[in-house]
Amino acid sequence: MRLAELSERSGVSAASIKHYLREGLLPPGRRVGTTTSDYDEGHVRRLRLIRALIQVGKVPVATVREVLRHMDDDSLGRTIRLGAGLWALAQEPEPDPEDEAVAVARREVDKLLEAEGWSAARQLRPLSPSYRSLIAAVATLVRLEFPWDADHLAHYARLMRQVASRDLDFLETVPSESAKAETVVAAALLFEPVLKALHRLAQEEESARRYGL
Amino acid sequence: MRLAELSERSGVSAASIKHYLREGLLPPGRRVGTTTSDYDEGHVRRLRLIRALIQVGKVPVATVREVLRHMDDDSLGRTIRLGAGLWALAQEPEPDPEDEAVAVARREVDKLLEAEGWSAARQLRPLSPSYRSLIAAVATLVRLEFPWDADHLAHYARLMRQVASRDLDFLETVPSESAKAETVVAAALLFEPVLKALHRLAQEEESARRYGL
Repeated sequence: MRLAELSERSGVSAASIKHYLREGLLPPGRRVGTTTSDYDEGHVRRLRLIRALIQVGKVPVATVREVLRHMDDDSLGRTIRLGAGLWALAQEPEPDPEDEAVAVARREVDKLLEAEGWSAARQLRPLSPSYRSLIAAVATLVRLEFPWDADHLAHYARLMRQVASRDLDFLETVPSESAKAETVVAAALLFEPVLKALHRLAQEEESARRYGL
Repeated sequence: MRLAELSERSGVSAASIKHYLREGLLPPGRRVGTTTSDYDEGHVRRLRLIRALIQVGKVPVATVREVLRHMDDDSLGRTIRLGAGLWALAQEPEPDPEDEAVAVARREVDKLLEAEGWSAARQLRPLSPSYRSLIAAVATLVRLEFPWDADHLAHYARLMRQVASRDLDFLETVPSESAKAETVVAAALLFEPVLKALHRLAQEEESARRYGL
């Protein structure tokens, strides 16, 4: 397809597409003349992802480039490759190891991962921003004296494992490897708000069920 | 207790406590002299909540005041009173009813609520920012052509209902009505990041389980 059709299909203006081509976010089309190129479905998908990252995720262009670079790196294994895009998005600072609440949180999270047999998550600890985020979030609860230890966390961890299993079932319906990597990144930005809103709506439903409106 | 002890117990500086007293975020203590007042456990708890809202939630002082006003309003029923604090936090704009993706999203969400028998959530629709957030989040998926209809949403809705049920079980361990209202607001700011991090960690675990690292 030509640039005009690519623009219409992806919902991205021709000017923005040219900008993304210059910035290297979008691979060039196949040259079919001195001034025209031919684009394919991969370009449409990639543009939708870029649009989601920039417009919905408010992700800076330099980060988008890094995310895409990881996603396109065939030398990485699937979990790392799918994760790498996500990880580039979530630049979590290392929690302060001197902080007592952080130490307590790390102990409880490590106990949780061991008790639940999450062995891959344990192996990925030094790499994973999700692990660091969890430590930081639990440390805040510890500081405010919420009694959220490994046992309390376990109930939520098991439910989130079921959610993750659904996520991956959905991912398996996505045909190509590069479309999968794109879906993972889109998922973090687009599915998480759905989950959060469903969670709050479920709280309202459950509260009304128990206590009346 | 005196101001110095209140400061130490709550982790909020004396200067900030005085500021919150002047701003009406914190009710005055019991006067015990011309310049000293006596504070109780309710003040400690309220200060921890204010600290969570302002420091963790980055909530503006005016919004904090509104949240607290709803929480303290005895004339409201429990679900509304617990929800009102949360709702003041989440000022969602009304999704554009002219937008076709919004119309599709609303149809699927309404179908979901009916199919799952979430009757309170249906009744609360005109009030609830959670409902509006869900419409907006699903509309984004519709626009990007993700096939997330009511059936697909239902799997997630059921799991989130189980999460919400756990949340409310935890809430029932909190003694007083005002402490409950505080916990609900704290929960939105503090537990949701835990849930999100557990979700991402579970995705990594599940991906590694299926595909290797």
